[in-house]
Amino acid sequence: MEQRIIKRLENIVGSTNIIFKPEERICYSYDGTIQRGTPDVVVFPDGTGEVSEIIKLANLEKIPVFPRGAGTGLSGGSIPQHGGIALVLTRMNRIKEISKEDLLAVVEPGVITGNLHQEVERLGLFYPPDPASLKTCTMGGNIAENAGGPRAFKYGVTRDYVLGLEVVTPTGDIMQTGGRTVKNVTGYDLTRLLTGSEGTLGVVTQIIVRLIPKPKDKKTALVIFDDLDKAASTVNAIISEGVIPATLEIMDRITIECVEKTAHLGLPIDAEAVLLIEVDGSLAKVSEDIQIIEDICTKNSCRAMEVASLLADRERLWKARRAVSSAIVQLKPTKISEDATVPRSKIPEMIRRLREISEKYNLFLPVFGHAGDGNLHPNIIADKNDKDEMERAEKAVGEIFKAALDLGGTLSGEHGIGVMKKNYLEGEMGAIGLNYLRAIKKAVDPQNILNPGKIF
Amino acid sequence: MEQRIIKRLENIVGSTNIIFKPEERICYSYDGTIQRGTPDVVVFPDGTGEVSEIIKLANLEKIPVFPRGAGTGLSGGSIPQHGGIALVLTRMNRIKEISKEDLLAVVEPGVITGNLHQEVERLGLFYPPDPASLKTCTMGGNIAENAGGPRAFKYGVTRDYVLGLEVVTPTGDIMQTGGRTVKNVTGYDLTRLLTGSEGTLGVVTQIIVRLIPKPKDKKTALVIFDDLDKAASTVNAIISEGVIPATLEIMDRITIECVEKTAHLGLPIDAEAVLLIEVDGSLAKVSEDIQIIEDICTKNSCRAMEVASLLADRERLWKARRAVSSAIVQLKPTKISEDATVPRSKIPEMIRRLREISEKYNLFLPVFGHAGDGNLHPNIIADKNDKDEMERAEKAVGEIFKAALDLGGTLSGEHGIGVMKKNYLEGEMGAIGLNYLRAIKKAVDPQNILNPGKIF
Ligand SMILES: Cc1cc2nc3c(=O)[nH]c(=O)nc-3n(C[C@H](O)[C@H](O)[C@H](O)COP(=O)(O)OP(=O)(O)OC[C@H]3O[C@@H](n4cnc5c(N)ncnc54)[C@H](O)[C@@H]3O)c2cc1C
Ligand SMILES: Cc1cc2nc3c(=O)[nH]c(=O)nc-3n(C[C@H](O)[C@H](O)[C@H](O)COP(=O)(O)OP(=O)(O)OC[C@H]3O[C@@H](n4cnc5c(N)ncnc54)[C@H](O)[C@@H]3O)c2cc1C
Repeated sequence: MEQRIIKRLENIVGSTNIIFKPEERICYSYDGTIQRGTPDVVVFPDGTGEVSEIIKLANLEKIPVFPRGAGTGLSGGSIPQHGGIALVLTRMNRIKEISKEDLLAVVEPGVITGNLHQEVERLGLFYPPDPASLKTCTMGGNIAENAGGPRAFKYGVTRDYVLGLEVVTPTGDIMQTGGRTVKNVTGYDLTRLLTGSEGTLGVVTQIIVRLIPKPKDKKTALVIFDDLDKAASTVNAIISEGVIPATLEIMDRITIECVEKTAHLGLPIDAEAVLLIEVDGSLAKVSEDIQIIEDICTKNSCRAMEVASLLADRERLWKARRAVSSAIVQLKPTKISEDATVPRSKIPEMIRRLREISEKYNLFLPVFGHAGDGNLHPNIIADKNDKDEMERAEKAVGEIFKAALDLGGTLSGEHGIGVMKKNYLEGEMGAIGLNYLRAIKKAVDPQNILNPGKIF
Repeated sequence: MEQRIIKRLENIVGSTNIIFKPEERICYSYDGTIQRGTPDVVVFPDGTGEVSEIIKLANLEKIPVFPRGAGTGLSGGSIPQHGGIALVLTRMNRIKEISKEDLLAVVEPGVITGNLHQEVERLGLFYPPDPASLKTCTMGGNIAENAGGPRAFKYGVTRDYVLGLEVVTPTGDIMQTGGRTVKNVTGYDLTRLLTGSEGTLGVVTQIIVRLIPKPKDKKTALVIFDDLDKAASTVNAIISEGVIPATLEIMDRITIECVEKTAHLGLPIDAEAVLLIEVDGSLAKVSEDIQIIEDICTKNSCRAMEVASLLADRERLWKARRAVSSAIVQLKPTKISEDATVPRSKIPEMIRRLREISEKYNLFLPVFGHAGDGNLHPNIIADKNDKDEMERAEKAVGEIFKAALDLGGTLSGEHGIGVMKKNYLEGEMGAIGLNYLRAIKKAVDPQNILNPGKIF
């Protein structure tokens, strides 16, 4: 990149908030995937005005800009594939307001999701979206990916909590969308168009999110099944009874085996499925719900069930689920984490197909995820230095997507398309859908400055 | 319109599904507002293919197309302001699927919302969005307006239930958005961009909506207050306690007086506010919630409170709310129904400002609406033949919008912009926001064929 441009960027953000040394830039070349790409320069703006100036400069000089939060993305969304400017939003990390009366918070994009949780919970409030990366990932990244998490089944995803945004458009203008009210139908729903747009339609510089009162009580159950279909019918039966657990997670046999071998929690390694169910709400509601769940699990001949109320006991049950991510990479270092999602009734069929794919390509493929909303996480565990295995993995990924679409599902429930899935997009959206997306992108970013090469 | 074009339209929809006589076309010249505009021709397609052919023809011949459901809109969205084709979707009124397992329904756009309610409730399921027009309005119109209703406070609006759409684009292509899963982040969120787009970005030809299990129990309370602020603090206190009623409606003194004078329900006409509160859910939860509500109302010195459990008793309490629409037009025939929405904490201030506006312009202005989400319905009751009064009403509407925006609110909580509010749009969205909207519209509808003159 020309010195002249670096100088101008330095004038905007200040000399301590810019990185151009190669060995430092490399820290901004990766995310949670196997994708890599080093930016020519990394800037850390503080304030919407600075972001706007940077984007205007980029338009003038035709340089691509790659917005970045914490870089925990699982689809390559923040990767600067062809140099350009990495625009890191982490300095803009203030919680500007928490209103108990209007039940909302106003935050900057660099606020870490877990920090917002802590602050609002201290006031008896609750911000439900809880991606497993919450200790690191940013609210801006959550908006850009429309992040979900285990609580999404009951509470919905990020989209369901964004009330309004401040956005720097791809041409550098500053725009407000939505506002401080839950209901708002003024103009197109730009707030939701931007949510999940993976940094391609605007840079989010401020966020208004809806909060709810913190649930008063919680109970957790860990239920073991010898039969996958019984586990799946249990999920359906619970929901049909009108019980909506906050969390309804499933782990398949391979995942259970993996977790048990590394974490030694006493899980039976011959079980076909484990459900982790958590209900929350008022005291009366939680007692009522857990009773119904116990009855249903028994009727569906679960092998064993443990219910916990106290925090320490609940944490013990959660250990199995929390151990998954680290357990499955003990065997091999490279994890290709997918989030293909199917209608809930298709979960058993999807798991069966995943097993077939795993056998066909001789790959290690544990499956776990959010059973309540059909959002499974098939993970291919491989070694990126093993070329042959990586080729098989790539083919397997294609078949996973095909299976999900065959069953009326989607490529991505929560991780986004980024660069990892863009070749499959047309398979889901069709040529017409893709053209419609492209037309929107082109209309608001005529020079293709903002996060080029992502999604399509 | 040229005979040649009418002939071609007739070939597409069949001779019994087209109207061109002036006295018949006039039936499609109005909606729930005072706007009027007669189409040159009215067509009633059956099937996505026919819709697509009509739109393609319209593009070829550069004729505007105005999608229309039941014509109950409250912002003039379906009015053919400058002739053209009225595209009425009411023949496409099949409920194609209701899945208990995947908790979803697939419907055509002409399905009447209330009919869908009945069908799904018969199966123990529940589709929450309940615009007061539900016995007439269509699902397609609900999507296009992102309709709300009294249950929106707990359950959310139409947007929160749309999973996927089939859409004929403004150029006549057929596109699928979203799908059968609750979670889906593949590509931009076209499903939500189209929801609330008021028929300007595509014609909805099929809809997949999420269902939930039907709540098992309900209780209703009618609470009378001598003090507006006490009524408002009651609303906040209930929510802070973690109780989320399905319905939390407020009526101001003028509305109460009006209702009592025409319906004689025994409401005290000197009361400052009435709250109608309904809780639903499991038996245990409903009992717990109503107890908390009773305590809070007492603490906030309500004048009187009645709680009902049985259907007949609940219906009696609802009578007051249901009587509002017809009661307020007893005095004068023209109703200008607004839906300016403010953050919940600003409700008392908004009601005070509305009273000032009513006095300033000497207008009859009852206020009621959805207190839970700050979505008030100030209604100006006037006589459209009284020119002076209508001029005052117009000025008052402008001030109502200004007050809502001043208080951090929005022009429209649920009725949309249509033609009624388009002059005020820039006041809320700013020039940049408006340009962003326009760019999207232009990108997908380059010839401005679909519902021109609406929103902007
Ligand atoms: C261990 C682990 C567990 C995870 N668990 C979950 C989970 O449970 N649920 C889930 O949904 N995801 C999960 N993820 C994925 C990831 O954490 C989320 O996608 C998260 O939202 C990314 O946030 P980030 O700040 O790291 O964004 P980044 O990775 O830095 O960026 C992600 C995308 O957002 C864009 N972006 C970032 N900030 C902005 C901004 N201010 N304006 C515009 N665009 C911006 C980037 O350009 C990029 O396209 C997990 C990831 C890991 C590593
Ligand atoms: C008495 C009364 C009470 C009401 N109560 C409420 C309420 O509580 N909450 C609320 O939100 N609204 C309410 N409304 C407003 C109105 O009923 C809603 O906006 C409803 O969604 C309109 O549906 P419709 O079928 O009548 O649509 P129409 O009025 O025919 O059209 C409305 C808009 O939708 C577009 N449209 C219609 N069908 C399609 C389609 N298939 N594809 C694309 N665009 C389409 C039209 O072009 C137009 O822009 C009320 C109206 C009345 C008269």
